[in-house]
Amino acid sequence: MYTLYSMQRSGNSYKVRLALAKLGIPHRLVEIDILQGESRTPEFLAKNPNGQIPLLEVAPGRYVAESNAILWYLAGGTMLAPEGRIERAEALQWMFFEQHSLEPNLGAAFFWLALIKGGRELQQHVLEDWTENGYRALGVMEKHLTDHRYFVDRRYTIADIALYAYTHVAHECDLDLSRFPAIRAWLARVAAEPGHVPIDWQPEALAVAK
Amino acid sequence: MYTLYSMQRSGNSYKVRLALAKLGIPHRLVEIDILQGESRTPEFLAKNPNGQIPLLEVAPGRYVAESNAILWYLAGGTMLAPEGRIERAEALQWMFFEQHSLEPNLGAAFFWLALIKGGRELQQHVLEDWTENGYRALGVMEKHLTDHRYFVDRRYTIADIALYAYTHVAHECDLDLSRFPAIRAWLARVAAEPGHVPIDWQPEALAVAK
Repeated sequence: MYTLYSMQRSGNSYKVRLALAKLGIPHRLVEIDILQGESRTPEFLAKNPNGQIPLLEVAPGRYVAESNAILWYLAGGTMLAPEGRIERAEALQWMFFEQHSLEPNLGAAFFWLALIKGGRELQQHVLEDWTENGYRALGVMEKHLTDHRYFVDRRYTIADIALYAYTHVAHECDLDLSRFPAIRAWLARVAAEPGHVPIDWQPEALAVAK
Repeated sequence: MYTLYSMQRSGNSYKVRLALAKLGIPHRLVEIDILQGESRTPEFLAKNPNGQIPLLEVAPGRYVAESNAILWYLAGGTMLAPEGRIERAEALQWMFFEQHSLEPNLGAAFFWLALIKGGRELQQHVLEDWTENGYRALGVMEKHLTDHRYFVDRRYTIADIALYAYTHVAHECDLDLSRFPAIRAWLARVAAEPGHVPIDWQPEALAVAK
C-alpha cells in the first residue's frame, strides 16, 4: 500500500489526495506539518532531500517527490491520463506551466497570506510580482478555457487536477476571479466531476499515522 | 519535419536543441529574439498564448510548449528516456524540480544579469532570493550526485538535459560552483557524452528562417 506524506492545507498535496480519491487507490496518509518544520527533520530529509511534501512511497524505501510527477505516476493507464502522444505532451505542458507560471505565484501567496501569521508583512517586497504574474498565468488559462471545456484531450485529466489545486483558492491569494468567467465555469465543472473531494477532505477509513 | 521556435541564448531552448542534436532529428529552426518582443507578436501568441520559447510544432498547426514537456515528447521510446514506471516518475520529479526550484532562480538571474543591460539594477529587490534559492537547489543536486553518476536510471536521460541547461551557466547567474564538486564532475560527464553540443551550437545544414 502506498504511503503519502501530505499536508491538508497544501494545494500541491491536495492534487495527489484528489487523484488517489478519484482512482480509489488505498493509501496510508501521513500528515506532515511543514509550519512545524516536520519536512526538514533528518528522518524526512532522508526520504526527500528537497524537504517538500507531497511525497509518495511507491515501493519500500523508494519515494517520488513533486506533486505533478506523482500525479503522472498514479494516473498512468487510468482514466485520468490522456492517451495520445501529443495529448500526453500537452498534459505535461500544462503541468509544467502550473509549476512554473501559476504555483510560484498563487502557491507562494497562499502559503504566506493564508497560512503564515504576519506573512504579508514579511513578503511585502514580492507581493506585487506574485499578483501581476498570477493574473498573467490566469489570463493564459482563461484564453484556453474560452473554447475548451478541459485543458487537454476534451476531458478531465491530471492536467485539470494540477491546475485546479491553487486556482480554486485564488481568493485566498489576493486574486479576484470575477474577470475570468471561463475559469470560474471550469472550476465548477471540475468540482462537479464524479468522485471529487474538497481540499480539506480526509478519508475516514484511513488512519493518519506519523 | 518539426519546426522549433528557439533562442540561441535561452537555456530552456538549449535543452530542446541538445535533445534534437543527440537524437539526430531533422528540424527547422526559427530564431525568436525575445529581447525584441518576437515572442509577444500576435503571430507568435496565436501559436503559444503563453508567449514563450521554446515551442515545437509537432504536427501542422499543433504546438507543444514548455521545454521539459517538449523533451518528454521527443525522448519517448529513445535512449534518452528512462524505461521503468518508477524511473519515468523520477525523471519527471527532477524535471519539475528543475522548473520549480532551479530555473526560476538561475534562469531568471541568467536572463536579467547576462542578457539584459541594466538588469541587475532593475531586479535588485529579488537578486538575494534568487541567489539563496539557487544555492539551495544546487545543494539538493549536489547531495544526489554525490552517489549517483546521473540523475535517474544510472544513465544519461532527459532529466540530465533539463538540469544541465542552466547549471552549466551558473557562473553567469552570480553563483559559484566551487563548493559543488559532484555537480562539476557531472557537468563534465554530460559535456563528454557522445553527440553533445554547446549552447551556442547551430546546425550548419539547417536554414534559420523566420
